[in-house]
Amino acid sequence: MAAAAARPSFCSLIAKPLLFPLLLLLFLSPSQLALSKVHLHKWDISYQFKSPDCMKKLAITVNGETPGPTIYAQQGDTVVVQVNNSLVTENTAIHWHGIRQIGTPWFDGTEGVTQCPILPGDTFVYRFTVDRPGTYLYHAHYGMQRSAGLYGLIQVAVPDGVAEPFAYDYDRSIVLNDWWHNSTQEQATGLTSIPIVWVGEPQSILINGRGSFNCSLSGPNQVCNATNPECSPFVLAVVPGKTYRLRIASFSSLSAFNFEIEGHNLTVVEADGHYAKPFVVENLTIYSGETYSVLFTADRDPGRNYWLAVNVVSRKPGTPVGTGILNYYSNHPRRLPPSSPPSGPPWNDTDYRFNQSKALRSHPAYVHPPPPAVDRSLLLLNTQNKVEGRVRWSINNVSFNMPHTPYLIALKKGLRHAFDQAPAPETYDYRSYDIYINQTNPNATISTSIYRLEFNSTVDVVLQNANMMNPNTSDTHPWHLHGHDFWVLGFGMGKFVPGTDEKEFNLVDPIMKNTVAVHQYGWTAIRFRADNPGAWAFHCHIESHFFMGMGVVFAEGVDRVGRLPTSIMGCGHS
Amino acid sequence: MAAAAARPSFCSLIAKPLLFPLLLLLFLSPSQLALSKVHLHKWDISYQFKSPDCMKKLAITVNGETPGPTIYAQQGDTVVVQVNNSLVTENTAIHWHGIRQIGTPWFDGTEGVTQCPILPGDTFVYRFTVDRPGTYLYHAHYGMQRSAGLYGLIQVAVPDGVAEPFAYDYDRSIVLNDWWHNSTQEQATGLTSIPIVWVGEPQSILINGRGSFNCSLSGPNQVCNATNPECSPFVLAVVPGKTYRLRIASFSSLSAFNFEIEGHNLTVVEADGHYAKPFVVENLTIYSGETYSVLFTADRDPGRNYWLAVNVVSRKPGTPVGTGILNYYSNHPRRLPPSSPPSGPPWNDTDYRFNQSKALRSHPAYVHPPPPAVDRSLLLLNTQNKVEGRVRWSINNVSFNMPHTPYLIALKKGLRHAFDQAPAPETYDYRSYDIYINQTNPNATISTSIYRLEFNSTVDVVLQNANMMNPNTSDTHPWHLHGHDFWVLGFGMGKFVPGTDEKEFNLVDPIMKNTVAVHQYGWTAIRFRADNPGAWAFHCHIESHFFMGMGVVFAEGVDRVGRLPTSIMGCGHS
Repeated sequence: MAAAAARPSFCSLIAKPLLFPLLLLLFLSPSQLALSKVHLHKWDISYQFKSPDCMKKLAITVNGETPGPTIYAQQGDTVVVQVNNSLVTENTAIHWHGIRQIGTPWFDGTEGVTQCPILPGDTFVYRFTVDRPGTYLYHAHYGMQRSAGLYGLIQVAVPDGVAEPFAYDYDRSIVLNDWWHNSTQEQATGLTSIPIVWVGEPQSILINGRGSFNCSLSGPNQVCNATNPECSPFVLAVVPGKTYRLRIASFSSLSAFNFEIEGHNLTVVEADGHYAKPFVVENLTIYSGETYSVLFTADRDPGRNYWLAVNVVSRKPGTPVGTGILNYYSNHPRRLPPSSPPSGPPWNDTDYRFNQSKALRSHPAYVHPPPPAVDRSLLLLNTQNKVEGRVRWSINNVSFNMPHTPYLIALKKGLRHAFDQAPAPETYDYRSYDIYINQTNPNATISTSIYRLEFNSTVDVVLQNANMMNPNTSDTHPWHLHGHDFWVLGFGMGKFVPGTDEKEFNLVDPIMKNTVAVHQYGWTAIRFRADNPGAWAFHCHIESHFFMGMGVVFAEGVDRVGRLPTSIMGCGHS
Repeated sequence: MAAAAARPSFCSLIAKPLLFPLLLLLFLSPSQLALSKVHLHKWDISYQFKSPDCMKKLAITVNGETPGPTIYAQQGDTVVVQVNNSLVTENTAIHWHGIRQIGTPWFDGTEGVTQCPILPGDTFVYRFTVDRPGTYLYHAHYGMQRSAGLYGLIQVAVPDGVAEPFAYDYDRSIVLNDWWHNSTQEQATGLTSIPIVWVGEPQSILINGRGSFNCSLSGPNQVCNATNPECSPFVLAVVPGKTYRLRIASFSSLSAFNFEIEGHNLTVVEADGHYAKPFVVENLTIYSGETYSVLFTADRDPGRNYWLAVNVVSRKPGTPVGTGILNYYSNHPRRLPPSSPPSGPPWNDTDYRFNQSKALRSHPAYVHPPPPAVDRSLLLLNTQNKVEGRVRWSINNVSFNMPHTPYLIALKKGLRHAFDQAPAPETYDYRSYDIYINQTNPNATISTSIYRLEFNSTVDVVLQNANMMNPNTSDTHPWHLHGHDFWVLGFGMGKFVPGTDEKEFNLVDPIMKNTVAVHQYGWTAIRFRADNPGAWAFHCHIESHFFMGMGVVFAEGVDRVGRLPTSIMGCGHS
C-alpha cells in the first residue's frame, strides 16, 4: 500500500537526476509541502508461482502479488516508485497509464519509446506528479509482460475540501483481466512463427486477480486446485441501502468485457479520470486500458447474494463468464446466488457497444471545450497484414517496429540513424479502399517511422477499422494515447468520409479520455493538443496487436524536453 | 556451419575495440595470414518451438536450431561470432567453454563476471583466438539459459602437417544433454521458492539434440508427436572395418552420463583438449562440461545395428536410457538392434566412476609437468545449505551471489562498492567438520567476495565434497575453471587431510583439463598457474548448482588487462 516517507530518509534512494526537484521541495513553505505529498513505493519485480484461476503458473509479480498493490495519492502529489528487477534474465519497464508525465516524459515507462529496459538486478526510480484526480493504471510496457501479471491500479483523490459531482458511501475497485495458461514467451513466439501459432481465447477472466478454471480440464502434469484460496471468488460485501462507487479497470490482453451486477443498474460517472454526464446502464462494456467509475445502490432484496458477471463481447466467447459475489450483509459471503450469472448482451451486438460509446459525454460542469481549429488531421487505417510471411497489424499499411534505441533519447540526442527518418503516412487511399473485404495483396511494410507534431498544434486522428485477413471479421481495437488526454469527437459505422463526417463531430461536450474503442468496421475520431514535450506511443491496447505492430509514435516539442536522466539510457545506439 | 570470410568484408561488423588487432593482421606476411584464418559466424538467438524429445516446448536456439551449429577452426585461427539477441524480453551471454581467452578476457561470455548481458535487439561481437587444438563447447552463461537449449560444439583442428598421436578414419560428434519439459523460468523460480520447488529428474536424455519421450505420458494440452522427425533417433552410420574418432561432450544441467556403444570398446585419447594416455573402457562416464575423444573400430558383426546408450549415473535414474543407433552400412539406418540397450554400470557404483577418473593421465608424449612449488593452497568445502530459508550451495560456508556489475569491469575500474571486498575464505575447519553427516546448523552466508591471485603464482585447489542436507546423500559436482587448464593432481575418497594427502598427488603425468568431477564424499585436487590476466569463474557445471551459489571467482593480473571494450559495459555500477 502507499507509504508516505519522511523526506530525508528516501533522498539516498533517488537517482541523481531526481535530486534537483527534490531539493527545490525543501524550499517550499510548510503549507505548500502539506499540499504536495511524496509517496514512496519499493517494488520488487519477480516471477512467482500463482494460481489466480486455480491453475498454477508463473506470473510476474510486484512484491509477490498479481495484481500489484494499488497506488493511492491525491491530486498534485508526487509518486516515487523504486523498481528492483528480480527477474533472472528478463528486463522490464512499467508504464503509468493515464498519467500524462508533464515535465517527466522520461518516466512514462514505455520501453523503446521513453526508456531502455530495466536490467535484472538494477533498480530504476520512477518519479512523477499525479496532476489530475481519477482512476488510472500501471502495467508492464515491455514485450508482452503485462499479460504475465504485472499490472495494478492508481487512485488519485481530489484535494481536501474539493467535492466531486456525485455522492457515494464507499469506494471499491474492480480490476478485470483475461488469463492464459500458456506463458507470454510461448504466446510471443507463436505470434512470430510462420505460420502463426495463435494461443486462442483466454482460459479465464479474472476479477481482482481471481478466476475459476475448471480443473477437470487440466492435464496430468499441471497443478490445478479448485480449493486454493488464491482462486476463491472475489466477494464485494455491501451494506443494504448504501451507495457504492466502483472503479472498474480493464487490463485485458485481448477481450472486450461486459460487466454486470445482477439486478443492479450502474450509473456511469467517470471515465479515464474525467467526470461523465451521468447515464444509467444495466451493464457496462469496458475495453482494455479503460477505467470507469460507476455508482450503484445496494437497494435490492437483502436476503440473498447477487452475481458479479464479466462476459466477453465483440469476439465469440471461448471463455466462461467471470464471476464474483455481491454479498449483502449479513448473508454468508460464500453463499451462491440462487440464479444463473447474467449472460450480458449478445457478444456480436455491435450496435449495443456503439451506443454506449456514443452515450459517454463530459459532465456539464466539467466540459473542457476542444480547440475549434485543427492544424493537422491524420486518417489511420487499421488493417491486419502479412510482412515477410508473418501476420502483422498495420496503420496505413505500415507495421510498427519497436526500435531498441528509445525515441526520446534518439530525438533528444539527434541520433538520426536510430530510426527511420521518413515521415509515417498521414492517410490512406480512402476513396478506393473497401474496408469490408479481404485485400488481394495483404502485404504491408515494416518501419520505425514516427509522426512529428508541431508543438502546441491541434491534431485530429480518425482511426478507421476494416476487415481482417479472414472474411467477414473485424476486431474491436481500444487505442491508448500516452502523455495526453484526447477529446472523443465521434464514432461512426463504415468508412469515414473526410470533408463530410467531420460535421458530425461533437465539439460541445466531448468526454476526454486516454483510451477509446474503434468498433468493428467503424471509425473513431479524436482530437488532442500536442502540448506535452516528449515522445509518446499511441497504440492498440490489445497486448498481441501492439506486439504485432499496431501502433505509432508522436513526437512534439522535443527541444523543450529537459535534460534526460541517465537512468533511462544504456541500450541501442548512442 | 563455419563460414570463412574474406578479411575486408567483415571489418564493418567488428566493434571498434576489435579493429586494432584486426589492422595488425594486415601487416602480417601472406604466409602468416594463411596460418591464421578468421571464421565469421552470424548468429541470431531466438525462442522457437522445438520437439527434441517429441514433446513440443520453447527452446532458445541459434539460427533456429538447438544444439547450435558446430564451430570448426584450426589452431591459431580467430573466431568471430556476431550474436544478435532476438529474444523478446530476455538478455543473453555466450561462454566459449575451454577457450582460455588469452588476451581477450572480456570475451569469455560469463555474465556478471566478464560482461554485461546482451540486450534484446543488440548485437554483440565475440572475437577470440583458438590457441589449442581439441574439442570445446559453447553455451549460454546467463541465468539457466543453457538448459533452455543454447549450446553447441567447437572443434579446433591441429595445424596442417601436424599429426595427432592416434589414427582414425572418420571424425564424428556426440553431444549429450538432459532435457526438461518445464521452462527454465519455472525451474529457476522453483529453486528460489520457499520451500524449494524442485523440477525433478529430466524427462529425456538427448543425443545430438534427439531424445524420445513416451508421448502416452503427455497431457491433453501438450503437443507430443512420436513421429516428429525432430525426435527420430540419432543414427551413427559406420563402414565395417573403419575406425572412428567420437568427440563426446556433455552439456547436461544435472545428470552424470555413462555412454556405451553396445559391443564396442572405446579407447579414450583426448579429454578437454588434451591428449590422454590411451586407455580402453567398455563405457565412458562423462560429466557436464567435459569433452572426450574416444576411438572405436566397427569390427563387429556387420549384419545388424547396435545401440548407442546413455545412462544416468551417480543419481538414482528417473530418466529412461537415451538411445541412438550405430548403423553398420548397409543395414537400414532405422533397423533396431535385436537386443536391449546396455544399462551401463550400476548408477550408485562410485568406485567405478572414481577409477575412471584416476585412469585418465596425460599422453606420455604430451606431458606438461606441473610446477613443483605451490604458492597458495585453497581447500574448498562443497556443501548444501540454507540462506534466509532458501536452499543454496556454498563453498566454505559462503554461497556465491552473482553481482550485476561484472567483476572484470569493477576490478579494472576500481569500483570497490560493486562487490564485497573481503577475501573469500581459503579453507574450512577440516579437523572438526564431519563430511558424512547432516550439519546441525545448515545456515550459510551469501557474498560476492572473490579470490585475488598473485599473477603467475601457482595455486592448488582441493575441492572437498560432503553430505547434503538430506541424510546419506552426496552429489557429484563437475567443477569448471574459466580461462585456464589445470592439472588434475588426484582424487580421494573421504576427507582430504592437508599435510598428508598431498603426498599422493600425481606430479608426473597429470592430465590437464578445464572440468573435473568431485566424487561423492570425496575430494579432487587440481593445480593451475594464475597466468591469464582477467577475472574467471570457477564453478560447479550443474546448471542449478551454480545458480544456487556453487561457484567462486578468481582474479589475477587485472592491471595487465588491456583496455576493455565498451561493448561489455552498460550494467550495474559505473
